[in-house]
Amino acid sequence: MVDVLMKSSESCVKGYWKGISTAYPGLFIDVESQTILLNKDRANRVALVSAGGAGHEPFGAGYVGENMLTAFIGGALFAAPTAGRISTALLNIAKLNKGGILAVIMNNTSDMLMFGLAIETVRVKGVQIESILVADDVAHLDADIKNGYLSRRGLSGSVLMFKILGALSKNGRSLKEMVLEARCINCRTCSMGIGMRPCKYPGHNQTMWMLDETSVEVGIGLHGEAGLGRLQGVSTTDLVRVILSQMMRIFVVKPGDDIVLLVNNLGSCNEMEMYTLAYELEQQITSKGINVLRTYVGHFLSTLDTKGANITLLNISGREDWLRFLDQETEAYAWPVTRLSRINDKIPKALTSLEVDDKLPEVDSMVLTEREGNTFKSTILAVCRQLREEKDKLNKLDSESGDGDTGNAHLSLADAFQNNIGNIPVRNLGMGFLIMSKLAENCGGNTSAALYSLMLLGASKSATDWASAWIGAVEMLRKYTIADVGDRSYARCPHPSLLGVRFVFERIWGRELAKSVELCSGQSHRRM
Amino acid sequence: MVDVLMKSSESCVKGYWKGISTAYPGLFIDVESQTILLNKDRANRVALVSAGGAGHEPFGAGYVGENMLTAFIGGALFAAPTAGRISTALLNIAKLNKGGILAVIMNNTSDMLMFGLAIETVRVKGVQIESILVADDVAHLDADIKNGYLSRRGLSGSVLMFKILGALSKNGRSLKEMVLEARCINCRTCSMGIGMRPCKYPGHNQTMWMLDETSVEVGIGLHGEAGLGRLQGVSTTDLVRVILSQMMRIFVVKPGDDIVLLVNNLGSCNEMEMYTLAYELEQQITSKGINVLRTYVGHFLSTLDTKGANITLLNISGREDWLRFLDQETEAYAWPVTRLSRINDKIPKALTSLEVDDKLPEVDSMVLTEREGNTFKSTILAVCRQLREEKDKLNKLDSESGDGDTGNAHLSLADAFQNNIGNIPVRNLGMGFLIMSKLAENCGGNTSAALYSLMLLGASKSATDWASAWIGAVEMLRKYTIADVGDRSYARCPHPSLLGVRFVFERIWGRELAKSVELCSGQSHRRM
Repeated sequence: MVDVLMKSSESCVKGYWKGISTAYPGLFIDVESQTILLNKDRANRVALVSAGGAGHEPFGAGYVGENMLTAFIGGALFAAPTAGRISTALLNIAKLNKGGILAVIMNNTSDMLMFGLAIETVRVKGVQIESILVADDVAHLDADIKNGYLSRRGLSGSVLMFKILGALSKNGRSLKEMVLEARCINCRTCSMGIGMRPCKYPGHNQTMWMLDETSVEVGIGLHGEAGLGRLQGVSTTDLVRVILSQMMRIFVVKPGDDIVLLVNNLGSCNEMEMYTLAYELEQQITSKGINVLRTYVGHFLSTLDTKGANITLLNISGREDWLRFLDQETEAYAWPVTRLSRINDKIPKALTSLEVDDKLPEVDSMVLTEREGNTFKSTILAVCRQLREEKDKLNKLDSESGDGDTGNAHLSLADAFQNNIGNIPVRNLGMGFLIMSKLAENCGGNTSAALYSLMLLGASKSATDWASAWIGAVEMLRKYTIADVGDRSYARCPHPSLLGVRFVFERIWGRELAKSVELCSGQSHRRM
Repeated sequence: MVDVLMKSSESCVKGYWKGISTAYPGLFIDVESQTILLNKDRANRVALVSAGGAGHEPFGAGYVGENMLTAFIGGALFAAPTAGRISTALLNIAKLNKGGILAVIMNNTSDMLMFGLAIETVRVKGVQIESILVADDVAHLDADIKNGYLSRRGLSGSVLMFKILGALSKNGRSLKEMVLEARCINCRTCSMGIGMRPCKYPGHNQTMWMLDETSVEVGIGLHGEAGLGRLQGVSTTDLVRVILSQMMRIFVVKPGDDIVLLVNNLGSCNEMEMYTLAYELEQQITSKGINVLRTYVGHFLSTLDTKGANITLLNISGREDWLRFLDQETEAYAWPVTRLSRINDKIPKALTSLEVDDKLPEVDSMVLTEREGNTFKSTILAVCRQLREEKDKLNKLDSESGDGDTGNAHLSLADAFQNNIGNIPVRNLGMGFLIMSKLAENCGGNTSAALYSLMLLGASKSATDWASAWIGAVEMLRKYTIADVGDRSYARCPHPSLLGVRFVFERIWGRELAKSVELCSGQSHRRM
């Protein structure tokens, strides 16, 4: 793997803080002490503060903003900030937030010790401060925890906690009320991680954990810690079944409950993977009789560029106020805008489904005699036959510079024309071209077909005579391609493909027409 | 690599559309035709519509929302949607947006042909529609383009265009005005891509392009197309220098100009990399006398999970209105909230720098006689000596279950106490513990030091006698650790580490104290 932007963990962390201080001048960002805070006098409001090591971005700088975190103090890579930095930040925050401070601490030893030390330090200086521990990971259930080896780690449930508590703070709730609500949120949250490709440490070549290529680690921690176990060659459906079965064991969520679902990208999943996972989760949760009232999908809490995800369920049954707090907008840059995450009953829906209108327009057209029409028809069929015969040759020619499917593309076009020859009104040139254009449009969505469809559409619109139709075809095509004479791309260049078409016209309709085509082709220009 | 969530491109694309239809019920999303649109009557406003293949998420579904796109029609993986789907969408959109439609098309053959065909189809049905081609990629400059092989592809500049045009639409501008502005934006935008790790096609094992592990592909296209060339083992500074030197060649941006910088994550860069890159770009651009008025960093336009980035510069000199339009908030889920991207002059800044307050609080304390104080001092020094001597042994013990640095951690603690022994007021027990707590806090930020610092802080707060101090120490520690007697984690468990400390106390202060400690230890409980 490459280290172009990841020379060392120190340079990465420093670069990150310098970068956010550039990108978000609306916040107070002290690069040196890695402190970010809402730089305004919030009167008697309660400050909501968190802290944690680097490598989990956008957590937590991305959540600083009104209606979410008041401040965040960052550490070195995967290491809590020192107590000194935290206490300095807390003392400054206390001056701007006279309602006291609620510290949200991830259940991680060093975070707890450093934050604890800072809390005790500022408390003796008169700062009113309380703390809450986020412990939402249910990869290891209580039985294991009682054995003393493991405990519930803090995962992406923290982000929902930030959002609800931030709104409570903005709404003027007291520190005492916020502590009680935080405990309640904690009890109603459960999360679990899955990992599919490990990240690696900046400046090193080794990956953070090991995984063979077909497995997924279920219950993985935020630093790659092993979890519940590994699944191999599993389907999305079965993977989700395993995750939910573990999550349901703790009875935080049960049938009939209303929940919020958060699907967090640990780093390198693409959006197709994330929403595929979110959909499968939503389906299986719903099938258990649980109502998913909001689904949030995005980059909330990462482990560098790990390919994996965290799944969080928050039980909001009977707590419509929490839902309202989640919906309240925040300026924090990492919280997705949520107005579209819900149905707005105030705005009447304009559509319930897409209407399809495939009526063909009227076109002015030259009308052919029966004999001329039959010649046109047999010409179309002759071209189709020729395309069918030349399929392999066209594929071969294309394979030398393209993906070798031009013959196939023309074959499907030939099939479409031939199979529908009875529907092409060959005596009405304009309508004939228009219907051929539609046939080309609907024959597979390949670029060649679109190209002919456009030409035929152009021809249909100026089919008062053959030469005008040809000009219309060429001009229409050039309008939507930017290549020019001499270009070697088939699709981008009307000219070389026109040569072939001209060849056919020449043979059948004579040199006069071909000459006029040549003239027109030279005159036409891109009008787009 | 793993395919747990990426069995095939068809299932991925379908899963994605199902997923977003679940996550964003506030929008009209037709999964079958892959159409997403603002489902409300927008009266005489102009609709802003785009279309494109899948694999580039959040482009473009993520930009649908008031003040940004009105609609987006998605295709199969890396393939334009068919003209039929686009025209059906356009006909429906036209009913809700009586001001006409502006189609924003990425400069890509199939997008142009399919969109072109749809535009021509709906135009004959009376829909007022214009189009604009996004062509911001400057990896291949005009000289190459004139040769006809390549042209400026559409990259992340499209997103800034969506944002400005979307605000123009919301603000009631006419279709004609919007077309003119779109052309102007296009002329003032330049972009370039870099690639560091290729993605792979869903359901396949091959990666989309090849790159050795120390190189970066400069000028890469959105489908992995080769660009300007490859750089090997380059620094961030030099990489940015190469990118900017190519971008400056086209004179879209020159010294004295005001610009907006967008740094787009192609998929798998982590945020530390992205903001490090953004900062370096901002620094070098500024050093050329160009003013960066906004910096946007995020996931705007991807190539599956490619590790790479797009850099876009938009020249907004003399166009304060564009800046205002960029700042206007949108509900679109993929546009980052921007209120914090600028300085809000209306809210007075409360802080200009962090104030550091390291005054020590007063503590109630037992006062020792001179002889007792000297014994305390020599005890501290004896413990330090012992820790120094046992360094390797502690490291070795730790290496069997941890990372083998516990001896080093204790050594730095011993150094801190020993080097500052003169500053520890050994006759005032409370102040002595407090200063030792501070020394521990400041000696490197490791977990062991934090643990002792917390204990010493706890001791200092109840140092009316030795036994109380000990209880204070234990209770303070247990407050911020969640492990219990019998746990095998050193850091998480006060008990085993207390045993060692008790051993020292036993030897020096006698069995009576040790017994009282044991009693207290049993009584104390976690209070957090």
